Formats: sequence, structure tokens, C-alpha cells
Amino acid sequence: MDLNPSRTDRAVVLTSLPADRLAVDHFAVVEQPFPGPPGPGEALCRTLLLSISPGSRAWMQQRTYRDRLDDAQVMAGYTLSRVLEENGTDLEPGQLVFCDGRWEEHSVLPRAALTPLGPADPAGAGSAVPLTHHLSLFGPPGLTAWVGMHRISRPQPGATVVVSAAAGATGSIAAQIARIAGARVVGIAGGGAKTAMLTGELGLHAAIDRREADLGERLAEACPDGVDLYFDNVGGEVLGTVLDLMKPYGRVVCCGAVASYDGGRGTGPANVPTAIVTRRVTMQGFIVFDHADEFPAARAQLTEWAGSGELRVQEEVRDGLDAAPGMLVDLLAGRTTGKTIVRVAS
Amino acid sequence: MDLNPSRTDRAVVLTSLPADRLAVDHFAVVEQPFPGPPGPGEALCRTLLLSISPGSRAWMQQRTYRDRLDDAQVMAGYTLSRVLEENGTDLEPGQLVFCDGRWEEHSVLPRAALTPLGPADPAGAGSAVPLTHHLSLFGPPGLTAWVGMHRISRPQPGATVVVSAAAGATGSIAAQIARIAGARVVGIAGGGAKTAMLTGELGLHAAIDRREADLGERLAEACPDGVDLYFDNVGGEVLGTVLDLMKPYGRVVCCGAVASYDGGRGTGPANVPTAIVTRRVTMQGFIVFDHADEFPAARAQLTEWAGSGELRVQEEVRDGLDAAPGMLVDLLAGRTTGKTIVRVAS
Repeated sequence: MDLNPSRTDRAVVLTSLPADRLAVDHFAVVEQPFPGPPGPGEALCRTLLLSISPGSRAWMQQRTYRDRLDDAQVMAGYTLSRVLEENGTDLEPGQLVFCDGRWEEHSVLPRAALTPLGPADPAGAGSAVPLTHHLSLFGPPGLTAWVGMHRISRPQPGATVVVSAAAGATGSIAAQIARIAGARVVGIAGGGAKTAMLTGELGLHAAIDRREADLGERLAEACPDGVDLYFDNVGGEVLGTVLDLMKPYGRVVCCGAVASYDGGRGTGPANVPTAIVTRRVTMQGFIVFDHADEFPAARAQLTEWAGSGELRVQEEVRDGLDAAPGMLVDLLAGRTTGKTIVRVAS
Repeated sequence: MDLNPSRTDRAVVLTSLPADRLAVDHFAVVEQPFPGPPGPGEALCRTLLLSISPGSRAWMQQRTYRDRLDDAQVMAGYTLSRVLEENGTDLEPGQLVFCDGRWEEHSVLPRAALTPLGPADPAGAGSAVPLTHHLSLFGPPGLTAWVGMHRISRPQPGATVVVSAAAGATGSIAAQIARIAGARVVGIAGGGAKTAMLTGELGLHAAIDRREADLGERLAEACPDGVDLYFDNVGGEVLGTVLDLMKPYGRVVCCGAVASYDGGRGTGPANVPTAIVTRRVTMQGFIVFDHADEFPAARAQLTEWAGSGELRVQEEVRDGLDAAPGMLVDLLAGRTTGKTIVRVAS
């Protein structure tokens, strides 16, 4: 450990809160004093990977499942990190931890913000799984997809399942889980490269480009008998369009509202609640962290599917802390595919 | 039976479909040939009472749980009628029937559109129950309230329940059922006379006038710990306001969207689906007619509560077929209280 007090460390600060769309100039990369040493119950960690997540844009807007972000603070985010030094915790130096952390090279964090990837974890330390999978397949996206499809709603074989943002981190896994369950899966994504990937590599039945005109008509053609289950992580117009195609007693599982995160809240679907009543729809929201007791079972099954090649993991990785603001902006604009990750150190 | 072929009968025709708000001049009262005689499997009925329902405005807009209405047709609506003559059915002349009927003095209707109020019905023919109760307490409003509160979601004692349009036909009964179940019930209604009735005669814990400013703040004061269950029959801004006050894992039961029926679809609540996700809300729509097997149990319990005085029935009755268009317009504008009924004959 280098405890030289003049040593500095790099961090990304959210310098101002966006009024409309997020841009890279809402952030600045700064030098800050090297953190530490850890106080009682804390650990000093080196950031290996940053998880770039659309939800972090919502944290800038309002209280969500966590407090709203302030400006002039190091940007908050989930990371995969390595423990360098600990003070009175059960952690060991060298251990890998999933952190409710910050966009900085090193962090001192309380034990409660750290989830060790222990040997009990099928994809934990010592396994041959790529480190990035701890933020994609075994991280919040994969767990959200698994909980949404297995615990909130289990699609029946032959059911018509629609997944929005189906080329994204969560949607791509949710769509494949539904396909593995025997459902007829229609993915919605932005752009021809993504829709080609959905029907090609991911093996979905059909894919719809939301950027082309007449989304409702094209979706109705792909779902001639209506929609049994809609896995929604975008909200907005896409949600409204799918609601009008739900079968009676259909279910909508809501795990995000990406369409409303960037550029203000806008308006909600005009057919809420009319379509919910006339089609007898049940719409259910959930937050994956409420289902932590399910994570071991989820990770075991996801490991098996990924190992057999039944489930393909989509990731986009960029190098260096400086890449983080641009990657979040690109993610919110739909210019990325799969789980977005910044590699800070290895 | 007067079978004079030159005899005429009066009817209310929907002369044009409203583009914006419904007005009385979208209707005309006309003379038409006296209907009949009934063909095989049909009955000729005399209309006693017309049920004036907000849902009939939605029928003019789009396909709902029934086909969209056309213009230049006799207005559709539920009625309480008496069988005058039948042809090869199981009905008896003199029998009272609940009809999926029309705004006209006499109708010939197929057997499938008629539900007899037989002696097996606790409030049926021969009972001392006012006829109007067959359209309020024992009709779709009372049954919708009972199914929504007892089968879709059962409020726990001490739970905070919010009911919109709580002075209306369905809301007033739903709110009282929740109060009888031991919940802390907050009603939302338009105007001081209605809110006074809610906390007075109906015994609700609190009532909020939606026409006054800062609905959200006043509702938050009335529900300091948040909302466990929201019984919604209006949608729109009120739905959005209540969603922001839901407790985690709260439930929203949707049986109507009155706010969007008159004057175009408008926009939906901007916080759908964000609030549904972050508050882990389940929102469920239902149509009462799907639950017909529950109706005998519902009517028995509603009869008991009304008999003991625990549940007060709110009705507004006007006389004469000509009153029907104006009553529907007044209902949609929030100028009526309780179940709206037009008495056509006795």
C-alpha cells in the first residue's frame, strides 16, 4: 500500500444536474486525494470495472429506490472492485467485491456497500468466467431478467412474449430466458443491426425496429394473436403500443422506464388505465434487490445456460475511467448494445 | 298487448359521435315504430329504469369490452325492464329483467341480453328492495365494488385505502366496503357537498376535494404513511397523484378511466411506469362481468349490509326518457352524486 499522503486518485464528478438530456459536459474528471485509510467497518477497494446503467440517469431526477444524486459529487454507480485493505470486517485483501460505489479509481466504502464474490458463488473468485459477467449475466441485468421471468411471471410454452430494449443488458437476457422457456419471443430494439442480432445470434422469433414508422402495426403483425406477457424496461410510447395489443388477462412486468429517464418525465401512455381495464391486464413493478434470496439459484441457472451456449451474453466494454460519461450518454441515446462496462483497471 | 301496427314508441338516438365533450345535442328523442312481436328466442320488454353510466361514453370512443357504438342508432345502455311477451324462452310475462338494452320505452331483445331477477335472487321479485337498487347496489356498480374489494384485492384492517370518484355509483360502495373491512378510507370527490357526504353519511376517515389546488399535498396529509390500496375508477391526473403516494408493494385496482372518456384520450400519468417500478406496485384491471359466478354471494352480502344500515346507497333519479342525455352529460361533468338513473315507466 502506498500511503504517501500527497498521492492523488482520479474520479468522475457529476458537476451539474441535467435539466434536459444528459451530456458529457455534465461531468468532469478530477484529481482527488487518494482515499483512506479505511475506518472501522470499511474497506479500501480498487475499481476494476464500472457498471454503466440507465438507472443512474433516473437517480439524477428524483428519489427512486435510493436518494436522488446531488451535483458536485463523485458519480455514484455499481462497480466490480478488489479489496486492498480492510478494517475490522470479514473481508480479505485480494477479494473481489460487487460495490454500491462510485466512479473513481479507488474507494473507501462501508461493509454494507460491498457484496463479496466468495467461493460459494458459482461464478466467483477462481472461476473461468470473464470478470465482466459479474456486471452483466450475474449482475443486476441478468438477475433482473431472471427474477422478472421466473418469479414475477413465468411464461408458458407457446406464449407470445414481447421484450423491449431487447438488445440491451437486461432485455437481451430476459428475451433469451423466455425463448428457453418455450415462448414465442418478439424483441423490440432500435436499429437494424440490433434487430438482426436478435433474430440471429439470440434466436428470437421476430424483432421490430422501434425507429421505423407504424410500430403498432408491425408489432400486431408479429403478434397476430396478441401478447401474453410484456417485459418492459422502457415505458413511454412503446409501453402504450404494447398495451393495446395485450390479450385479455395478459401481464406486464415493469423493471424500468428508460424512455422517461433522459430529457424529463414527458407524458405517460394515453391508454393507461383504459387498456388495463378493458384488457384485464395486470402490471407489476419490481426491483431486483428485493429478491436477493433468489440470486444463488438465478446465478446457478444462468451459469448453466451460458456454459451450454443456450444463452449469449451481450457486452460492450470501453477502457479507462474517462470513457464513463460518454458511455452513459451513448447508452441513453440507444447507441450501445448489451451491458455497458468501463474497464478502469485489471 | 296493444298490437296496433300504427302505434309508435319513443327512443333516444345517438345522432352523432362526439369529437370532444359529449353534449345533449349529440342525441335526439324520436318516435319509432312500436317494436315486436318478438321472434324466436326473443322477448318484448317495457323499460322501467335506464342505468346512466360513464362507461357508455367510452363505448362511443373505441372498442372496449364491447363494440364501439355507431351514430344514428338508438343509444345503448343497461336497463331494468319488465317482460311483456316472450317467444320460446324460459321467461314469463311480468318478470323483471336486467337488460343489455337501449334507451327506448320498449325493446325486443334476445334472451342472451336478459338476466332475470328470479326468486332465487335475494333482492329479486317480491322483495321490498327499491327497484332502483337493481341498477345501483345489486347492479354493475355494487358488483364492481364488491368484486374489486373482495376478489381482486382484500384490504386489511388498518390499511390505508384511497377511492377515487368516491361519491359516485361504484366508488361510494367500494369505499364503504373498505371501511366495513376495517380499513382507513380516504375518498376523493369533486366539490364540498360530496366530501361532506363522504365523511358524514358514509363514515369515511377523510375526503379530499379534487377541484381544490395541491391534490397531492392534501392527499399526502390524509395518508401520512402512504397508500396500501387504491381503488381507481377515473385514471388521469388523480391516478398519477396517488401512484406517487403508494407504499412499497401497494396495489392499484382499476375498473374504469372516467377522466379519459369525455373529451379525447389526452395523456396518461407521466409517472407510469416509473412509480410502478420504484414502488413495486401491482396494478390490475378487471371487468365485473367476468365474475358472474360471484354475483349471488356479492348480492347476499350487500343486502345484509344495506339492511343493517352499515352501507348507504347513493342514487340520483330523474324522470322521463327525455332526461337521459342531460343526465349522462351531467354525470361526465361530475354534477351528479351516486348512481344515476332515469325512470321511464313504473
